Amino acid sequence: MTFRVTILGSSSASPTPRRNPAAHALNVHEQFFLIDCGEGTQQRLMRVGIHPQKINAVFVSHLHGDHVYGLFGLISTLGLQGRRTPLAVYAPRPFDDILEAHLRYFDSQLPYEVQWHEVETRKHQLLYENKVLEVYSIPLRHRVPAAGFLFREKNPPLNIRKEAIERYDMGIADCAAVKRGEDLQRADGSTIPNDRLTYRPYQGRSYAYLSDTLYSPKAAGLVQGVDLLYHEATFADSDKALARQTGHSTARQAATAALKAEAGRLIIGHFSSRYKDEQLLVDEARQLFPATEAAEEGKSYDIPLHKISF
Amino acid sequence: MTFRVTILGSSSASPTPRRNPAAHALNVHEQFFLIDCGEGTQQRLMRVGIHPQKINAVFVSHLHGDHVYGLFGLISTLGLQGRRTPLAVYAPRPFDDILEAHLRYFDSQLPYEVQWHEVETRKHQLLYENKVLEVYSIPLRHRVPAAGFLFREKNPPLNIRKEAIERYDMGIADCAAVKRGEDLQRADGSTIPNDRLTYRPYQGRSYAYLSDTLYSPKAAGLVQGVDLLYHEATFADSDKALARQTGHSTARQAATAALKAEAGRLIIGHFSSRYKDEQLLVDEARQLFPATEAAEEGKSYDIPLHKISF
Repeated sequence: MTFRVTILGSSSASPTPRRNPAAHALNVHEQFFLIDCGEGTQQRLMRVGIHPQKINAVFVSHLHGDHVYGLFGLISTLGLQGRRTPLAVYAPRPFDDILEAHLRYFDSQLPYEVQWHEVETRKHQLLYENKVLEVYSIPLRHRVPAAGFLFREKNPPLNIRKEAIERYDMGIADCAAVKRGEDLQRADGSTIPNDRLTYRPYQGRSYAYLSDTLYSPKAAGLVQGVDLLYHEATFADSDKALARQTGHSTARQAATAALKAEAGRLIIGHFSSRYKDEQLLVDEARQLFPATEAAEEGKSYDIPLHKISF
Repeated sequence: MTFRVTILGSSSASPTPRRNPAAHALNVHEQFFLIDCGEGTQQRLMRVGIHPQKINAVFVSHLHGDHVYGLFGLISTLGLQGRRTPLAVYAPRPFDDILEAHLRYFDSQLPYEVQWHEVETRKHQLLYENKVLEVYSIPLRHRVPAAGFLFREKNPPLNIRKEAIERYDMGIADCAAVKRGEDLQRADGSTIPNDRLTYRPYQGRSYAYLSDTLYSPKAAGLVQGVDLLYHEATFADSDKALARQTGHSTARQAATAALKAEAGRLIIGHFSSRYKDEQLLVDEARQLFPATEAAEEGKSYDIPLHKISF
């Protein structure tokens, strides 16, 4: 049961020869999602071995070009390859107008539907849900309306401890009730609490994408306990005035967010092209939050299952 | 005095992990031009060592996404980097509407002007001229209005043969007239023909870009004598019905165009992703036109000076 983030792009607005504009791919139980879609994303998907047709939905944080210019080529290519399955795109307004212009000028014959779902960037709400995953918007503070995303694997159903079935002579109806989380009502009038009868095979995993944004304690609070946090760190601490002015974070602020969120690990990215070596930014973040690393393009970050012992 | 074509992208509409969408860079005497601008062109410029700010003008053959999606990221990045110099874009209608939509949604604060010049795709006409270069449109036959481009280095001024100055005792006024191409009128009433007095240090060089198009003898005729011809060769001969249906050429047709144009060399590209090895297409073209090679991305093709001996 995979839960894997693959970094496709990690530059800030001006790409460099080594770093591409923003895009992450998320694989949750072999269902694929894109988070932002900077220029060139379709080819970088191919290069990491994810067929672009596998993408179910795209989550766009905000409508700056470096987060969205790759979506138009992706939309066209999926059409050329004969896609019929709708593609869901979660993005703030006026993505509806932009999409309409794109379809008018470039893709009037598209053989599948691009279904826009509005992201209301000031609201923390459930955007998407399937059997195993929930995706929530996380309001951010940028120069234009922007939202981060929290991807939360659902907790799996409760399993019944085998020895409990024998000990309490549980029938089918008892088992069904206990699996739903109810306590066991016995014929003798006694009650056995659910947690003595069941266990969760593992805890649902989570990934949060917070970019582009000023440091926001509120956003950090909303991703409390996240296993893996991606937080933009466009600037070094010495450029924090510039960070504030442009609506971005420093590496130190990204680490502060990870601390506040009690994140498991932190990946920083969206680096300004002014820093020739991002180790400076990693070092600054690690002073506060040691489990930090710099986004590495083409690399996949697996979040292992937290198996619950009992 | 450079005259150099660098291939940045050579895929057809669906890019592959190895081939990028259409874009060529042209360096004529250290002035830089882009021909088509598929997704990712700005980074591929950087990778071949051409600073995107050096681009003077962009020539767009037609408004299919694989030839133009990279222009929007390039426009944005040039602005972010503080460009003040206008950028000329030669493109068919409705590029004006597309540009207006782009600026409205993504680049309303652009610090420089994008100057659109209409390419009337049914006309063969001079689009651009500077001291050393002329660019002509070449009508093509595609599913949407499309034009190729002929880049023609101007012939350099005539030089006077040193021995002629002494032999005919030429004064300053004589020299000026002869350099303009006039014959020498001598005091004794005799006339010396200009070609006995002058020579051209070299012949202006030329490059033609014909993509996307059906085989067009008319287009081939309009690039007569071109030193280097890039012609699309989307399909193999066995798929020529598909080529016709989609408004594209086979490798054999590209070679036919090169033969008809009496081109010096032929580069083929815009390969359909169905061919795993483009050598098949090169082999087909070479049967008719041996001086054919497959476009190689990142490679530069220098056209050497034809020095004229006398």
